[in-house]
Amino acid sequence: MSWSFRLRIRGSPTNLMNERLNFQVISDATGSSARSGSLPLSRGLVETPFFMPIGTHGAVKTVTASEVGELGAQVILSNTYHLYLRPGAELINKAGGIHKFMSWDGPLLTDSGGYQVFSLATMRKLDDGGVTFQSHLDGSIHQLTPEKVIDIQRQLGSDFVMVLDECPPGDADQATWAAALERTTAWAHRSVKRFRESEPLYGHQQYPLCIVQGGTDPDLRRRSAEELLELDTPAYAIGGLAVGEPKKEMYASLEVMDALLPRDRPRYLMGVGTPADLVRAVRYGMDMFDCVMPTRNARNGQLFTRTGKLNIKNAGFRDDLNPVEDDCDCQLCRQFSRAYLRHLFATGEVLGLRLATIHNLRFYMKLMAAIRTAIRAGDYATWSRQFLAEYESDGND
Amino acid sequence: MSWSFRLRIRGSPTNLMNERLNFQVISDATGSSARSGSLPLSRGLVETPFFMPIGTHGAVKTVTASEVGELGAQVILSNTYHLYLRPGAELINKAGGIHKFMSWDGPLLTDSGGYQVFSLATMRKLDDGGVTFQSHLDGSIHQLTPEKVIDIQRQLGSDFVMVLDECPPGDADQATWAAALERTTAWAHRSVKRFRESEPLYGHQQYPLCIVQGGTDPDLRRRSAEELLELDTPAYAIGGLAVGEPKKEMYASLEVMDALLPRDRPRYLMGVGTPADLVRAVRYGMDMFDCVMPTRNARNGQLFTRTGKLNIKNAGFRDDLNPVEDDCDCQLCRQFSRAYLRHLFATGEVLGLRLATIHNLRFYMKLMAAIRTAIRAGDYATWSRQFLAEYESDGND
Repeated sequence: MSWSFRLRIRGSPTNLMNERLNFQVISDATGSSARSGSLPLSRGLVETPFFMPIGTHGAVKTVTASEVGELGAQVILSNTYHLYLRPGAELINKAGGIHKFMSWDGPLLTDSGGYQVFSLATMRKLDDGGVTFQSHLDGSIHQLTPEKVIDIQRQLGSDFVMVLDECPPGDADQATWAAALERTTAWAHRSVKRFRESEPLYGHQQYPLCIVQGGTDPDLRRRSAEELLELDTPAYAIGGLAVGEPKKEMYASLEVMDALLPRDRPRYLMGVGTPADLVRAVRYGMDMFDCVMPTRNARNGQLFTRTGKLNIKNAGFRDDLNPVEDDCDCQLCRQFSRAYLRHLFATGEVLGLRLATIHNLRFYMKLMAAIRTAIRAGDYATWSRQFLAEYESDGND
Repeated sequence: MSWSFRLRIRGSPTNLMNERLNFQVISDATGSSARSGSLPLSRGLVETPFFMPIGTHGAVKTVTASEVGELGAQVILSNTYHLYLRPGAELINKAGGIHKFMSWDGPLLTDSGGYQVFSLATMRKLDDGGVTFQSHLDGSIHQLTPEKVIDIQRQLGSDFVMVLDECPPGDADQATWAAALERTTAWAHRSVKRFRESEPLYGHQQYPLCIVQGGTDPDLRRRSAEELLELDTPAYAIGGLAVGEPKKEMYASLEVMDALLPRDRPRYLMGVGTPADLVRAVRYGMDMFDCVMPTRNARNGQLFTRTGKLNIKNAGFRDDLNPVEDDCDCQLCRQFSRAYLRHLFATGEVLGLRLATIHNLRFYMKLMAAIRTAIRAGDYATWSRQFLAEYESDGND
């Protein structure tokens, strides 16, 4: 694949001014670090905390972007690694950016591709320059460098741009975490430098995020945060969690992160999580989330409700003419019964995947709206306790 | 599967009055038998000619019934054989009928299941009582009789109810056609008798259709039509065409049918067809159509346009940022490019199947609307010639 588009380089200090976010927060009054705020982006105002549905190939599976917006999503996430391989950043550039290509005019975040290189690519060779890997699709050889992932995200035109990081598994040892941290800091410097020397291609401001690593070791987390805070990016992501470590250790790390990260910048907890995880992580001042769970579980027949999960494939739903969730306003619950949805899954109708996806995304969007409302009402301690008691009563997570 | 619902039998002559259709037609003034009319059904007025999208399992593949309605569909078709096997007529009865089950309040036609027994079932034994067959799903043994297919369709609550018929292939010999014709006549008598001795379960009038058989033999077609006209059903279907016979013979048979069938009853040409087929068949006074083509071809990546078909998987569309069809008002063409749709197919995103289905159904619905308009304007000869010249210019059918 050729790599010949022309970067417009200017290196003016106004870039740094432009990437500032005027993040206004209302903090929880009841003892936790929970906060709700508004984030005026170039493509519109976003309310925090928010959850980003995942559109890996520039499409949230089974639904269009405008439908995702109608369900209440404010920001969509797409994957640099996948888009880079198919259809390629040049085509998306030719289309006028990822927003035009996928017909979404709200904000969008792209990851850096680093995580996918480590989890999907069949071969990879890491050196300080970057990572060389073999495509999981056709075996072709590619290299991603800290600079190149920025160039790609400039071509994509995503609103939130992630630096290249190295994300080791949750059960790695301390030496591995330390090495990944060092490389992540070095790569972050190069990514942010490239970001600040280039500019947006489509007239919308983009915002870079550094990614804090360090596994579940408090000292490494502290070191990573301190090194990356020097880069002064408008928001910070927490990587290397929800990657296989025990839940307890994840929350201990969030407590460390909460104490270290500046309160005037949005915090993005990558890859989290279950409804209960979201409710708990918000207590540590987390503002942005993404996870495949609502969409992937939907396609497996698992539906989220206020009182826990249900698997629509269970024989018990065969004759159940009730909606999936009584008071839900989604297209599935307004129009169809559990029996109908089960019938669609039993007969392999892809409409079932879509209706389940719509319900789960709507559930997540209503959950985030309820979280924001509770925080702004100064009621998050009570609200979150009640939510968790009801949701987890049957052993759900 | 148990078969224990209680039929309400009354046998009053008012049933025959209730099943009359007040079919008002405006005939083409330019020499063909084309006509456009309105059909006041219990669930609303339907404009003819119309095309019925196929919802085999009580779902038009990838889209909800209300979305199919928004695309312009007036009547949906569903399959008795499939619904009988899954989820079963009892469950649909319990749900309050097929309309409530699938959330569709417009008219719906169900076939009798006969065609599927002959094309899908792995074993079948035919006798004068009915047809015994083995389910293609689990090998279970079932019997359909002329009476039972009516009972099932009463439970489903479809607006148009088809009698059980025997439909031999298009390349069968005359003796096979003659035998199938005889059985079809005998079964039609029994189906219509059962229909008139029973009544609707959900407060909406249902309308029975006999099915003319006879292959492509004019004498057999005449005999079948004469025998079935004695049953005086409110509409007539033409079966046994579009089942493998040469196109020329299909049109010769339509000419025969046009001369034989009363002009005051809607005519349903089963299983037809391509856009060009629809335009030509209308010239023989055909009013109702169904075919898997718009939906099935969409899922294979084949899109219909005014100037013929295109296969979105072709490499030539990789960088094509134009819509599938320039002046199309469907969701696909308004929001997305050919390159995006091709990308969805290349990455296996089921959203691609749905967007292609939406476009093809919209194409068929716009085609039927244009046919109705041309007939009512007394302009069908010119309009249909022009349509075919443009559509078939690249060898499309």
